[in-house]
Amino acid sequence: MPIIEMHMMVGRTTEQKHKVAAAVTEAVARSLECSADTVRILITEHATDGFYVAGQTMAQRAAARAQEKTA
Amino acid sequence: MPIIEMHMMVGRTTEQKHKVAAAVTEAVARSLECSADTVRILITEHATDGFYVAGQTMAQRAAARAQEKTA
Amino acid sequence: MPIIEMHMMVGRTTEQKHKVAAAVTEAVARSLECSADTVRILITEHATDGFYVAGQTMAQRAAARAQEKTA
Amino acid sequence: MPIIEMHMMVGRTTEQKHKVAAAVTEAVARSLECSADTVRILITEHATDGFYVAGQTMAQRAAARAQEKTA
Amino acid sequence: MPIIEMHMMVGRTTEQKHKVAAAVTEAVARSLECSADTVRILITEHATDGFYVAGQTMAQRAAARAQEKTA
Amino acid sequence: MPIIEMHMMVGRTTEQKHKVAAAVTEAVARSLECSADTVRILITEHATDGFYVAGQTMAQRAAARAQEKTA
Repeated sequence: MPIIEMHMMVGRTTEQKHKVAAAVTEAVARSLECSADTVRILITEHATDGFYVAGQTMAQRAAARAQEKTA
Repeated sequence: MPIIEMHMMVGRTTEQKHKVAAAVTEAVARSLECSADTVRILITEHATDGFYVAGQTMAQRAAARAQEKTA
Repeated sequence: MPIIEMHMMVGRTTEQKHKVAAAVTEAVARSLECSADTVRILITEHATDGFYVAGQTMAQRAAARAQEKTA
Repeated sequence: MPIIEMHMMVGRTTEQKHKVAAAVTEAVARSLECSADTVRILITEHATDGFYVAGQTMAQRAAARAQEKTA
Repeated sequence: MPIIEMHMMVGRTTEQKHKVAAAVTEAVARSLECSADTVRILITEHATDGFYVAGQTMAQRAAARAQEKTA
Repeated sequence: MPIIEMHMMVGRTTEQKHKVAAAVTEAVARSLECSADTVRILITEHATDGFYVAGQTMAQRAAARAQEKTA
């Protein structure tokens, strides 16, 4: 083990994914004192209409906030 | 928290996903008496060859049922 | 489908879980116009040391905020 | 129940997915002595930059190993 | 890869879990023509108030069905 | 986002979980250049009979290896 599922928005470059996977693996191996070889990371990317906070996409929230400021 | 992962078949419109995310967030906040701001929803869509019941895709099941009726 | 995984903190009563499962099922069936019979919900409860925002448990965050106010 | 989430690399054919879903369903129903009708399988495919062992993609690991042999 | 998450109701014995893990691993390795060494299985058990079909636990469904027959 | 699910064997102390959550959050925020406040981590612990490699628990694998050496 550890097996780590990372959920993120689409749009990161392959380079960014490589970087975060390497950094998280190092952080896990150091903190749990286990071999990096045992750490597996799965990245799942979600479309802009596939992630919601308070029932709104990030775009909907930004629009709502902009409107609040104008009002 | 609550963090909610919704698995569904591909093919829903963005409008349908917005609608279900808003409705589920409202249902969770009301039932658990928590703020909607703490509710996060992740939607993962599965291809038609990525979901199986009894070892068959929905298309395979429909075909099997149609054949049963004919037989 | 839809299959829904709900992650929440431990501590909810069975009654609360029944209530949220019924409400979410109704919300999904209505929004996606599918039969409630196709909706499955899995609840996973996480211990207080099993959920982190900004690298802190909810207790650590509350303590940090209380300290900020005092300072 | 049982609900089974299978994570695999992209690139399998639809035929391979049908085959593995049927075989896993049969294995689960036989081992747990439950009806195949209750077994649901969700397949999630991960891109080549979406799976890491020891902080490296499969391609990075293969390249590192090849280099070790040459050195 | 493949990484397989199995969700099931609590109550299976350790022997049953060993059996299903071995059988599923064999089925995956054979179907996808990959080494069994690459197959990882994670079992998550859900409490009786942690799994719902049509918004009801298995006990609630059984009770509802029994009542239908009597009515 | 990012939302991170960490699967590990039971047995880590609360202190170890705090440590790994803080380290992973820092690694993700730094690598993806996002605010730590947006990073959520869910830890799921699996029993010794809830994780399998090549169809065997860690104990079964250790026993098999010990036997190989003796043979």
